[in-house]
Amino acid sequence: MVFKELPDVATVSLKEVHLPPSNLHLQFAQLLQSETGADVTFLVSGESFAAHKLILAARSTVFMAEFFGDMKEKCSQSVEIEDMEATVFKALLQFIYTDTVPEFGQQVEADVEAIYTDTVPEFGQQEAAVTVMAQHLLAAADRYGLDRLKLICAGELSGGINVNTAATTLALADLHNCPELKARCVESIIRTCAALDAVLATEGYKHLEASCPLVVIDLFKAARGRKN
Amino acid sequence: MVFKELPDVATVSLKEVHLPPSNLHLQFAQLLQSETGADVTFLVSGESFAAHKLILAARSTVFMAEFFGDMKEKCSQSVEIEDMEATVFKALLQFIYTDTVPEFGQQVEADVEAIYTDTVPEFGQQEAAVTVMAQHLLAAADRYGLDRLKLICAGELSGGINVNTAATTLALADLHNCPELKARCVESIIRTCAALDAVLATEGYKHLEASCPLVVIDLFKAARGRKN
Repeated sequence: MVFKELPDVATVSLKEVHLPPSNLHLQFAQLLQSETGADVTFLVSGESFAAHKLILAARSTVFMAEFFGDMKEKCSQSVEIEDMEATVFKALLQFIYTDTVPEFGQQVEADVEAIYTDTVPEFGQQEAAVTVMAQHLLAAADRYGLDRLKLICAGELSGGINVNTAATTLALADLHNCPELKARCVESIIRTCAALDAVLATEGYKHLEASCPLVVIDLFKAARGRKN
Repeated sequence: MVFKELPDVATVSLKEVHLPPSNLHLQFAQLLQSETGADVTFLVSGESFAAHKLILAARSTVFMAEFFGDMKEKCSQSVEIEDMEATVFKALLQFIYTDTVPEFGQQVEADVEAIYTDTVPEFGQQEAAVTVMAQHLLAAADRYGLDRLKLICAGELSGGINVNTAATTLALADLHNCPELKARCVESIIRTCAALDAVLATEGYKHLEASCPLVVIDLFKAARGRKN
């Protein structure tokens, strides 16, 4: 086949046609919200959430084994989730369907307006609430094999390390195998004597001692190796 | 709750933690390929394709009505698609699950390697094949209400307007309501007398005359209004 070019017609690139961005995540957010075709209900801390086994399985190997493997949950339409708060499970579902975590400012477009019309809580409270959500969500992400969500939570927690959070975050990083976050906590805690003393006086440190004694040894070694 | 900042610890931003890009589209591509939990089979020009009603419905209002509305297809596990080539339906499915069209160079990461190991056809042939695919896929996108895919196809066709394609693409743009693409075709065809003569001599123009006589009137008006 021979092509004859049209005279004087410049090639028009794809970019010249207005193309809206991918809306895959928005359409799955809509599916979650509408509950159309939902085939499973989760019961979490007294609240129920309708969802789709297929979407959960596509995103999590744990749900894949649970719903499409040989386990008992295969045909069940109701699943009880223990040791998790409803708000955390809600955020987990949102991430599974959209790959974003609105709680961390990773907002899907459709929700942006809603956020701005809500009352904005006091800054410190909001920050603390985000840290607590990130801690719980990291644990949930680890439980369901959602590695990208784990990294997002670790990033959020890295940004929120202070006297009140350092020891708790360190325990969490150790428990859920987040080496980068763990190193960052240790580094922050031992940086100065004042920081170390302040952290050792927290409730979080008592919890760290009780739950992760080996991490305290790491902390001790790092503090001794410090140059001052 | 009062926060004490850790001395000398700079706030670490999320960006410092390595975060892989969203993999939503790759995981749905994997779901399509594995056929796990597939609940519908499409028969298209002698080939069969397993898919998931839920994903199709989330992405297309036409499939939503077909599978979750009150129509007869609700419980059917097999759907025959008429007037479509298997390669076109395959590309349509790929777009529904991933929001990309590999045929146009919009490649999902996992497939990039496969493309480079394939034999690369002669440039002109490849270009013609892409144009034909874009034409058929635009019609399919219109049929299933996939507006973003329609725009992607229109962009691809805009870049491939030449003597051989101009009239056929114009007919297609008219038939499937793509005003930008239609205007671009008209503009290209009437730009010079030589271009107009060349297009009028093609088979595509005969088809245009037969199928969209009103567009020929537009073309005539535009040519008369041309400054030369």
